[in-house]
Amino acid sequence: MEKLTIGLFGFGVVGEGIYKVLSNKKELGCKIKKIAIKDPTKKRNAPSSLFTTSANDLINDDEIDLIVELIDDADIAFKIVSNAMNKGKSVVSANKKMIATHHLELIELSKRNNVSFLYEAAVCGSVPIIRNLEEYFDNDLLTYITGIVNGSTNYILSKMKNDNLSYENALSEAKKNGFAESDPTLDVEGIDAAYKISIITLHAFGKHIQAEDIIRKGITSLKENDFLYAKEKGLVIKLIAKSHLNNKGELKDISVLPTFIEKEKSLSNTNNEFNGVLIGSSLADEQFLYGKGAGRYPTSSAVLSDISAIKYGYKYEYKKGIKNNLAHSKQTTKCYVSFDSEVTFDRSIFDSIKEEYSCEYTRYIIGYLQPDLLKNTPIFDDKRISLICYN
Amino acid sequence: MEKLTIGLFGFGVVGEGIYKVLSNKKELGCKIKKIAIKDPTKKRNAPSSLFTTSANDLINDDEIDLIVELIDDADIAFKIVSNAMNKGKSVVSANKKMIATHHLELIELSKRNNVSFLYEAAVCGSVPIIRNLEEYFDNDLLTYITGIVNGSTNYILSKMKNDNLSYENALSEAKKNGFAESDPTLDVEGIDAAYKISIITLHAFGKHIQAEDIIRKGITSLKENDFLYAKEKGLVIKLIAKSHLNNKGELKDISVLPTFIEKEKSLSNTNNEFNGVLIGSSLADEQFLYGKGAGRYPTSSAVLSDISAIKYGYKYEYKKGIKNNLAHSKQTTKCYVSFDSEVTFDRSIFDSIKEEYSCEYTRYIIGYLQPDLLKNTPIFDDKRISLICYN
Repeated sequence: MEKLTIGLFGFGVVGEGIYKVLSNKKELGCKIKKIAIKDPTKKRNAPSSLFTTSANDLINDDEIDLIVELIDDADIAFKIVSNAMNKGKSVVSANKKMIATHHLELIELSKRNNVSFLYEAAVCGSVPIIRNLEEYFDNDLLTYITGIVNGSTNYILSKMKNDNLSYENALSEAKKNGFAESDPTLDVEGIDAAYKISIITLHAFGKHIQAEDIIRKGITSLKENDFLYAKEKGLVIKLIAKSHLNNKGELKDISVLPTFIEKEKSLSNTNNEFNGVLIGSSLADEQFLYGKGAGRYPTSSAVLSDISAIKYGYKYEYKKGIKNNLAHSKQTTKCYVSFDSEVTFDRSIFDSIKEEYSCEYTRYIIGYLQPDLLKNTPIFDDKRISLICYN
Repeated sequence: MEKLTIGLFGFGVVGEGIYKVLSNKKELGCKIKKIAIKDPTKKRNAPSSLFTTSANDLINDDEIDLIVELIDDADIAFKIVSNAMNKGKSVVSANKKMIATHHLELIELSKRNNVSFLYEAAVCGSVPIIRNLEEYFDNDLLTYITGIVNGSTNYILSKMKNDNLSYENALSEAKKNGFAESDPTLDVEGIDAAYKISIITLHAFGKHIQAEDIIRKGITSLKENDFLYAKEKGLVIKLIAKSHLNNKGELKDISVLPTFIEKEKSLSNTNNEFNGVLIGSSLADEQFLYGKGAGRYPTSSAVLSDISAIKYGYKYEYKKGIKNNLAHSKQTTKCYVSFDSEVTFDRSIFDSIKEEYSCEYTRYIIGYLQPDLLKNTPIFDDKRISLICYN
């Protein structure tokens, strides 16, 4: 494609960044024709003639080849993106919630309309994980993906570890520095990470799993004692999203859980707002991709790469296939569970208990959790109970 | 392309690995029709009808679409690859010496004949550095590439540091474990790394520089004292290949030198046979790619990825352009230079000296080396003198 005419949804920091780069670099041959926004009264750093509050001004404009969708609301985004594809337009999106929630439907729509649908910016910001899985590791037999895919929680955990801050203080520092939203629930409860590992898993293994079926506990229950314990053992606590195959090619494990990582490992040295993803494969062995996971420039970089790829007709091919994942294989998971002395819970959640410790102010149990219980046991929701699994 | 018919040059560990994978995975639609080898008497794990000692049996076979070149000799490889492209065949090669030496000529040949010429396996084994520079960071304004691109020297340095081995003992351990060649000169003198950073620099910045014009010192002069000094200062010594632009877009620095890296940095945690490359950019900030740099499976993985890309007609586009690099901008380089008490050398190589230390068995000077002297000064060849630059 010689020239690309773009309709942009959203003019936040990323949208504005994309607009600036494309305006300054005419040689890219990409022109933003119209920008749809919610609030027409806000002052914008672009000619007012570009803006509209009507989605249809973009969707129904036959000159527009590509919709770049950068809005927050996943439901509205889904409508926009579906309509755009049905009108024969390609789509670049950064909306992980929308993609994870409607992944198969969106892929089907893009195939039916023979358009490109790219979303590198939705997963780990500037880290080109989807593109590498699609293009570079397309023939390699992958065995696991394990990584830090959420910058906010990684920032908070880094502060808790390095500056001995409580969760609450680390969170407020993250907010102050622009690394956490005013409502951080999606991040700190691991929901954002679950969207991302769901998307990654489809590209890595050809298996689709809904985010809500992923075993998950966030970082809100972690206490100073847990960090002391980790330090004593030479371990670092990270919120790890992972997806592993067993040797029959079944997903044996897909989860978002606080995890102990040995100090010298790449993931334990992935700090602050950075993301890092390990790709395990039978040929290439272990690959590690690392970079900034969020923020104006890293996200813009990923969106621009996708726009540029659309110019030469690039489409994801999902070469590993697209199957609904039917069954987890069953296996126990080694975990450390800590809680205040007065907290009680049903110990039968453990398949076996290996260590127990108690003193006047804290207790912990290390053991193997029952696989069937792992998802629905109350300790996943109980804020008084920390759970950290072993890598 | 529906089917790909391949002529393979070389049946060493990588060649045999590729043959096995393509034979086992028929669904890839790639068939090896003929394999050219040097020694017809050697026992091979493939039907003897596949083998020939005549290059022309492959080059002149019109059914063969793709030549995969995996031989050691760079001069013979260049003839094979040139002839193949002139016959309209695409080429996948892992021969960094051949590519670095004839880079512009080979690119010109591939363009003139409208064929693909891919060589991911020539640079950092399984780490997809070229593909990411070509495809993903194609529009981003890159500012630096800095990395560990040679597995043998990294293995040796890791052993020297972690096991307190002398250079000689670390080298012999590397040989024993298959991480160094019987003649390790290309690796330990940094020549292999210079080939690689030359190739990378063209893809990152569109600038061509011959390997022999790259400032270079290997690891053969490093001594135990240097490692003690590094440890004391919380630094790690790595052989770093780098290529930096200044803000006018000129190469300000392209070198292969032993370098002090701060302990917590990604590159200081890149150990043993692993490679790691940092990509600095104005949008994505800093990216890090890490993986196995050499060996049977990592190299096979890269070759297979290239073969697979050729199936869908992929070509490098050199979007950053291809210019001969005319001038280094001049700047001084901060270095630590250590030597035995009895060694003398011309101190005017330093623009300025910041620290000096001497005791009965060793001396060191820390200062800024003159830019003009950097390449031709005798200390680069004097094995009694260690030189380690600062990151």
